[in-house]
Amino acid sequence: MAIFKNKQKDELELGFGSKNYQNSVRFLGRNGRVNVRRTGLGWINNTDIYHSLISASLLKLIFIILSTYILINLFFAGVYYAIGASHFGGLDIESGSKFQEYMGLFFFSAQTITTLGYGHIYPIGNSASIAAAVESLLGLLSFAIATGVLYGRFSRPKAHVLYSQNILISPYKNSTALMFRITNKKQYELIESEAKLTLTMNDPETNKRMFLNLKLEINHVNFLALSWTIVHHITEDSPMYGLNKQRLEELDTEFIILIKAINDTYSQNVNSRHSYKAQDLIENAKFKPLSPEATKSGTLKISVTDIHLYETLD
Amino acid sequence: MAIFKNKQKDELELGFGSKNYQNSVRFLGRNGRVNVRRTGLGWINNTDIYHSLISASLLKLIFIILSTYILINLFFAGVYYAIGASHFGGLDIESGSKFQEYMGLFFFSAQTITTLGYGHIYPIGNSASIAAAVESLLGLLSFAIATGVLYGRFSRPKAHVLYSQNILISPYKNSTALMFRITNKKQYELIESEAKLTLTMNDPETNKRMFLNLKLEINHVNFLALSWTIVHHITEDSPMYGLNKQRLEELDTEFIILIKAINDTYSQNVNSRHSYKAQDLIENAKFKPLSPEATKSGTLKISVTDIHLYETLD
Amino acid sequence: MAIFKNKQKDELELGFGSKNYQNSVRFLGRNGRVNVRRTGLGWINNTDIYHSLISASLLKLIFIILSTYILINLFFAGVYYAIGASHFGGLDIESGSKFQEYMGLFFFSAQTITTLGYGHIYPIGNSASIAAAVESLLGLLSFAIATGVLYGRFSRPKAHVLYSQNILISPYKNSTALMFRITNKKQYELIESEAKLTLTMNDPETNKRMFLNLKLEINHVNFLALSWTIVHHITEDSPMYGLNKQRLEELDTEFIILIKAINDTYSQNVNSRHSYKAQDLIENAKFKPLSPEATKSGTLKISVTDIHLYETLD
Amino acid sequence: MAIFKNKQKDELELGFGSKNYQNSVRFLGRNGRVNVRRTGLGWINNTDIYHSLISASLLKLIFIILSTYILINLFFAGVYYAIGASHFGGLDIESGSKFQEYMGLFFFSAQTITTLGYGHIYPIGNSASIAAAVESLLGLLSFAIATGVLYGRFSRPKAHVLYSQNILISPYKNSTALMFRITNKKQYELIESEAKLTLTMNDPETNKRMFLNLKLEINHVNFLALSWTIVHHITEDSPMYGLNKQRLEELDTEFIILIKAINDTYSQNVNSRHSYKAQDLIENAKFKPLSPEATKSGTLKISVTDIHLYETLD
Repeated sequence: MAIFKNKQKDELELGFGSKNYQNSVRFLGRNGRVNVRRTGLGWINNTDIYHSLISASLLKLIFIILSTYILINLFFAGVYYAIGASHFGGLDIESGSKFQEYMGLFFFSAQTITTLGYGHIYPIGNSASIAAAVESLLGLLSFAIATGVLYGRFSRPKAHVLYSQNILISPYKNSTALMFRITNKKQYELIESEAKLTLTMNDPETNKRMFLNLKLEINHVNFLALSWTIVHHITEDSPMYGLNKQRLEELDTEFIILIKAINDTYSQNVNSRHSYKAQDLIENAKFKPLSPEATKSGTLKISVTDIHLYETLD
Repeated sequence: MAIFKNKQKDELELGFGSKNYQNSVRFLGRNGRVNVRRTGLGWINNTDIYHSLISASLLKLIFIILSTYILINLFFAGVYYAIGASHFGGLDIESGSKFQEYMGLFFFSAQTITTLGYGHIYPIGNSASIAAAVESLLGLLSFAIATGVLYGRFSRPKAHVLYSQNILISPYKNSTALMFRITNKKQYELIESEAKLTLTMNDPETNKRMFLNLKLEINHVNFLALSWTIVHHITEDSPMYGLNKQRLEELDTEFIILIKAINDTYSQNVNSRHSYKAQDLIENAKFKPLSPEATKSGTLKISVTDIHLYETLD
Repeated sequence: MAIFKNKQKDELELGFGSKNYQNSVRFLGRNGRVNVRRTGLGWINNTDIYHSLISASLLKLIFIILSTYILINLFFAGVYYAIGASHFGGLDIESGSKFQEYMGLFFFSAQTITTLGYGHIYPIGNSASIAAAVESLLGLLSFAIATGVLYGRFSRPKAHVLYSQNILISPYKNSTALMFRITNKKQYELIESEAKLTLTMNDPETNKRMFLNLKLEINHVNFLALSWTIVHHITEDSPMYGLNKQRLEELDTEFIILIKAINDTYSQNVNSRHSYKAQDLIENAKFKPLSPEATKSGTLKISVTDIHLYETLD
Repeated sequence: MAIFKNKQKDELELGFGSKNYQNSVRFLGRNGRVNVRRTGLGWINNTDIYHSLISASLLKLIFIILSTYILINLFFAGVYYAIGASHFGGLDIESGSKFQEYMGLFFFSAQTITTLGYGHIYPIGNSASIAAAVESLLGLLSFAIATGVLYGRFSRPKAHVLYSQNILISPYKNSTALMFRITNKKQYELIESEAKLTLTMNDPETNKRMFLNLKLEINHVNFLALSWTIVHHITEDSPMYGLNKQRLEELDTEFIILIKAINDTYSQNVNSRHSYKAQDLIENAKFKPLSPEATKSGTLKISVTDIHLYETLD
């Protein structure tokens, strides 16, 4: 049979091994992350805290910061309470409420760790003063770390590439081609973009996982200014030749896309990845042309979500 | 006709598509920015706030910082006012003026968010203390973000390339050449500079937009120490062959220049772009030679604006 | 004799010279650092303080920060003490204890350098105020440096590559091969990994140190997703041909490995190095296959420490 | 005449033009900086303030920071003085000394801009409070800039390459060779180092400045671990062939060296440059071999300044 006749010459080493899994696997998640969980060294060594913080969602980060702030203050309020409320001038200890004393020390702690230091409450004696001196240093260092994490988050060079929701098999030069579209969804520029398309599927003959390179008609554009339709011509030499959607699904096919570009704001290389499963494939359809308009001043305008639009053919 | 006989072999994919616009378009603005406005995902997703802040003008940034500072203080003054002026010790509430109370709380807010904390005004009770603790944390985080934005602005590697105001067609080796000059306008160095010149114009035959590569005599210099005259020899093989300024204007011609270099201070790659429209072209002219002088200590001196100077020939 | 017949064509310049040392040397430490100590310019010029701080252990860094904090405060407390305790309002000078006066000024110093400024102690007169103004500026600048060091530490792009404990000689394609395994031990991705393997040993004929390149079956993977077994086939062309473990030990052999990759979080190139001495070599053994599992959601799971596992063959 | 017979094929475009200066010129200073002063756009546009600050000497930077701190405080003290000393609580205005009033406001300003805020002096009324609120914001922003500048200074990837004081013409392979040595003077590593050597001299025939490439025996080392002797073999094909020191001086010769490497701590490319004038050339001499020693633990030790040592031959 001729199904895999073209596999040899284009076989690739992507780093996913060649094991053929029982379950259907997805090597890249929809967000482009490699779908592997690494264990064996304990959580602390398999993770990188700084990396987790800069790639966490904004909501999660705010939650982490707030709860750390509260916990540290609860802890230091406890330390101050152990030292004794009488060692803190200006604290309202007349009410006799232990809770209120603790709350007063909690606020004193907050004023100390932020280096706010109103001073209406202040430490008396060595123990209280030492604890406050330690807390204010800790506050400065925590804040230094927070500055680093926030800067790291914002300044991390990102490739904001938008991928069309589907990958199509469209008529192309008297035969067919595999096509998908990408665009830059942000206002700043991606330059010198390069694309690479890999096909991975099970090989029922050898019971191994194959990774095959799919040649692209154009694999480099200078500006990702409007949109870029990335095209693999399904010729007789293509590993896709003769495979339809149903067969691709049976073979647990995944199309893996690597985009390399230069983020012009930071002058740094950025990488974007995406994958389509065979289920995302639409046969016998073509993308609707985008309609950029030129304003009188010579500026072009496009709506980036138009790259998802296609029409099925009869 | 022979006008476009050379177009085939040098045709490029720049990422601007091949649509032929009704209006005259300018793909790159004079400042080198790609002249495309992207919409379709809403302002928040088509923009990157950090990117906007680091590339905004200094005046705009100062305005944003100042107004944010005032707005946050107005807001927290409102919160404190709602809690009640009597929960703030040291506040002048004897005058009975509600406005003055609010102003006092506004200043208390400013002293809290900057972690200044004079302490002549201070919170009394849990509500006021909690609000102040939250505000001081917010202050630290905002300041962390401001540090990041300011650092991001200053440290962003830039290519301060100055381009000659005009692009010339000058006599060159018994024929003519397209020429423009660049120089480094700052005191620090750009090294390993590379240039690429692209011509884009309408093709009246196909009614599409063409992008053609123009070969350069020298496309790399080690130091952009003095100035660099970038030369495309208009031979019979050139797509420019036989086209004069008037014809180039009719075809809505734009010359797109990409400069890649290494900013030596940051050891990072930087990119500079520029474009000339056919209107910027001067026929039958040549650049005046620069006159760097050597001081007795062996230092060379140049005036960078001299690169604009040319003289027309008869 | 044929032992070194293949050395010529693969000889390399690694930068370690060709001296043949009396003692057994290790050019790369187990941690991948180059095992050279440079002197001759004095400690201050042969070291880089910032570099030392960002690569110091966390414990050492905390110790340095804490002791610097204490020393600066001791110093400024001394300055304040010299100015005179009577120039500080709110200081408890009634007790008459000189030590307690000094301690009070120490805490005032801590409150000043952290810009905490409770204000229950405050400077009176010009000398005390000037000293406090200088200390608070110094505090801000020290803190700026601390922010930079902490950010530099966390944001430094690292290649968290885990190497198998041993390097094996395993059966391979009717002959043998030198093999070791690497994996990414952290949850974030390394992409576009490249490997280079160099053999260094004494040459008893010339009494010099040789550096020889060992060809790899595959020297590039797109994702270091699971693990990568790096293989040098010991053919007749290999410099390893005919050498057993005992002979390699006699020649003070070291295998030097260079891994280049892109850390996907930071989009930056990272380098990892490792070396095996002949003592780390296991003859006639092979690595146990890793057993990644696919969850129902399509995620793969591996335990990274499994790369150390091998079994000896009879 | 045969002096320049080899110039054609190796001619280079370094970006220094081809003008033949009256005075002797030095294109690269001894510190590796390009020896060009750019003017024409005014100081502000020909300079980059951030760049100046991060590359200024430490002493100059401290002076700039201190004087800025004093000037801003003098300015704000003036503003507060104009508002009136009576608007500041806790200020000692009984003495009646205008100077002492101004000094008190100066210290209040210092306590405000550093966000120290003891609070024994505090603003009363709207004008004073607004001025203080503005000053504390300015303080935070200035400090953010200082953080950025200090971080930028320390984290800037540098190539600490030490060059031998002289460039030699030594016996080499039955003929002679041009040789100089480099080493890494710091404890951290430079990897993948590449060298390029260019000769520039006046051409008395054309009265222009020539830039000629000198081929190197080895132009790449993996580790700059010990030292690297960079060698240009003066064969009959070399532009140096037949030129002695006296002739090279007459032609105002300069040897320009470019070193590219990867600073391993930051994983970034770094560049180092150096130049030798003909006056630095020593004929008929050779470098003394370095003598790295191996400790018992296998660590190598070298003294980096030994690279300067050479001996003249008879």
